[in-house]
Amino acid sequence: MGEGSARHEVLRARLAQFSGFGATAAGGVHRPEATEANRAARLALLDWLADLGFAPRIDPVGNIFGLAEIAGPEAPWIMTGSHIDSQPNGGRLDGTYGVLAGTIAAAELVAQHRATGQAACNLAVAAWCNEEGARFQPSVLGSQAYTGAISCDWALDRVDGEGISLRAALAEIGQLGSDAPAPHPAAYVELHIECGPVLDRAGQRLGVFDRWWGCRKLELRFEGSPAHTGPTPMHERRDALVAAAEVIGGVNRLWHSQPEGALHCSVGRCEVAPNSPNVVPSEVTLFVELRSTDADVMAQAHQQTLALAETAAGGAKVAWHVQRDELRRPGQFAPALQAIANDVARELGEPAMRLDTIAAHDAVPMARICPSIVLAVPSIGGICHAPEEDTAPGDLDLGLDLLHGVLARLVADGPGMLAADQGGSGA
Amino acid sequence: MGEGSARHEVLRARLAQFSGFGATAAGGVHRPEATEANRAARLALLDWLADLGFAPRIDPVGNIFGLAEIAGPEAPWIMTGSHIDSQPNGGRLDGTYGVLAGTIAAAELVAQHRATGQAACNLAVAAWCNEEGARFQPSVLGSQAYTGAISCDWALDRVDGEGISLRAALAEIGQLGSDAPAPHPAAYVELHIECGPVLDRAGQRLGVFDRWWGCRKLELRFEGSPAHTGPTPMHERRDALVAAAEVIGGVNRLWHSQPEGALHCSVGRCEVAPNSPNVVPSEVTLFVELRSTDADVMAQAHQQTLALAETAAGGAKVAWHVQRDELRRPGQFAPALQAIANDVARELGEPAMRLDTIAAHDAVPMARICPSIVLAVPSIGGICHAPEEDTAPGDLDLGLDLLHGVLARLVADGPGMLAADQGGSGA
Repeated sequence: MGEGSARHEVLRARLAQFSGFGATAAGGVHRPEATEANRAARLALLDWLADLGFAPRIDPVGNIFGLAEIAGPEAPWIMTGSHIDSQPNGGRLDGTYGVLAGTIAAAELVAQHRATGQAACNLAVAAWCNEEGARFQPSVLGSQAYTGAISCDWALDRVDGEGISLRAALAEIGQLGSDAPAPHPAAYVELHIECGPVLDRAGQRLGVFDRWWGCRKLELRFEGSPAHTGPTPMHERRDALVAAAEVIGGVNRLWHSQPEGALHCSVGRCEVAPNSPNVVPSEVTLFVELRSTDADVMAQAHQQTLALAETAAGGAKVAWHVQRDELRRPGQFAPALQAIANDVARELGEPAMRLDTIAAHDAVPMARICPSIVLAVPSIGGICHAPEEDTAPGDLDLGLDLLHGVLARLVADGPGMLAADQGGSGA
Repeated sequence: MGEGSARHEVLRARLAQFSGFGATAAGGVHRPEATEANRAARLALLDWLADLGFAPRIDPVGNIFGLAEIAGPEAPWIMTGSHIDSQPNGGRLDGTYGVLAGTIAAAELVAQHRATGQAACNLAVAAWCNEEGARFQPSVLGSQAYTGAISCDWALDRVDGEGISLRAALAEIGQLGSDAPAPHPAAYVELHIECGPVLDRAGQRLGVFDRWWGCRKLELRFEGSPAHTGPTPMHERRDALVAAAEVIGGVNRLWHSQPEGALHCSVGRCEVAPNSPNVVPSEVTLFVELRSTDADVMAQAHQQTLALAETAAGGAKVAWHVQRDELRRPGQFAPALQAIANDVARELGEPAMRLDTIAAHDAVPMARICPSIVLAVPSIGGICHAPEEDTAPGDLDLGLDLLHGVLARLVADGPGMLAADQGGSGA
């Protein structure tokens, strides 16, 4: 059995193992951040990293790192990784694939360079906390804290739908670390399933994301009055859900007035109180997302959303306000890393397709501090965030080989090859 | 201090006591069925009934009864009562007022007739389980089981939003009884706050409900596909919340096509899954209520609601079905009891106003088995199912006096005066 196929066998075995943590009857995993299932996956990863000779760390926001100082304390670091939290009843590959493949590829290179003593860089593996933004908002929370985009305390103060803070939830599962985070790397390479249909439809097996979409995330809060749904006269009701429903419908239609594919818009979460069948809903919070590569489209959709809320609230005689409004600007991943990835892909006989990432990935906040990139394999049918999420086994293997090849070049040649080429966020 | 004012002092003290069980910062109570706060209120009521000389019972669906056999084992029973569960963050008077006033009025009559030995009827007090239908659906669950409209097992199998059955919840708080229910009474008299604005606006202090509105309660289920809100192309999404939002808006407008006040329509509860900001909602359940006194209006609104769901589901490319569809027909309370109540009210110097009850009350299922009635006092501003729910203290006193007077006549004269006059449900 050659190195390549041994590598693939390990990937298969580890995917099987990690698919068991929070396994659902539908074939996916339910492993939101800091749940019991998430704890089990974290402990398994920490054990495995230690077995492979990485120094495991848990930092104060619950990011897990495995460090291998194969080039000495002064040498730059190369980092790979992704995340092992999942959406509620999500898929088994999203994030986990990148952490497992990253660990396998890095471990192979660590063993090889420890034997030869030729490494130009040290190697680190990361499993970022709360990438999904499912239990705690915002998403890519751990990587944002690591890069300094948000403070550690602010991240830990985020609360879930039941008012439990990330701090309390991590403490509960024994994963509120006190280790220093990994040193900031000279490059970050993440492998991920595409989470979209482009590769699958094009019949391509490898992708390289060259830019990310911008995203505006809004929480809109509507406040009416609770009242009995029986006797309260209709024209006296102040129904927050009626206002919210009009906004849900309106947001869903915003893309109609934009060029095909220019805007993705959604309301994924809707919290209603008191949410009793015979009480007029008095409080509703909507979680709106607006995504585009075009800053003008984003700005226009944002204004339209606020106008929708104003009109809908007026019609339902309820108050409203913007509770959260976050903008992630569109941006470019590092061209030099794209070039390396395209080279390696060609050597593997499967040229990589250029892709946009519309989803957030930890590589997006990482691109603020170092050249970063996301490599992709196809999602069958484009399905993601669902139990049916899947990728052909051969494609999973090929993605691992691509990641291995890219990391191998970086570790051997050092980050000089990336000089003055950081990509970064757009206007 | 006369009998009247002593009675009022006891009412004030007991209201103060019971307002403490599940008290909220906003001044209301949070006491859904079989919660800890509900348990505390139940235990206090059971203690108090025993102290007053009533034989306390908890039946197998968690109804509480206090029985006073003052006229002998063969004599008919007169029953009064209401409920002590509340809406989430509801008001302190809804239901509780009727239980406390009923206990006070009945206890006074029991003491008086035990002294004289002149009672024609026995007296029972009831606190019905899960009247609100907030934690468990449907509402008026305990009284429906008592009257045989639903089976005891079916009632106990109802589950809350977290999948906990009423059986398990009652067992958890030690209130899954094994006593026989109270004997079916010859008449049922319930005192309640109006839960609507009619008395308050008319400047009237007492009301007698002579009929109840019909109500159609629907649970509509929409099923799409979970998908990533980022990369998934807009035209490929199957968003269950988009369909549901259109139905929420449409149901809210159904009354526009009916005569003023003829239809009350609402969506009070909306359950969304997975309810994560970055997942296209795949499952939504709406709890719709349609209320009217007119069977044709009800039927038309019902058809329109189903048509709305069909159109909305088609537009969003999601499946849908009716998960629950219950009809409570409109009906009339017993005219002979109305006449007695009107007489007593006139004697009190405050003629009672004729009212419709649009809300459900336990008296509605009770009307299937015996002459029943609901007496009412004003709700300030019509507010109900909200912490601000309130009634002027003097009106609470007056309502208690009205209830006492009606029960006094029934206990003294016996149910012969009600013969052949049961009211009941309409066509």
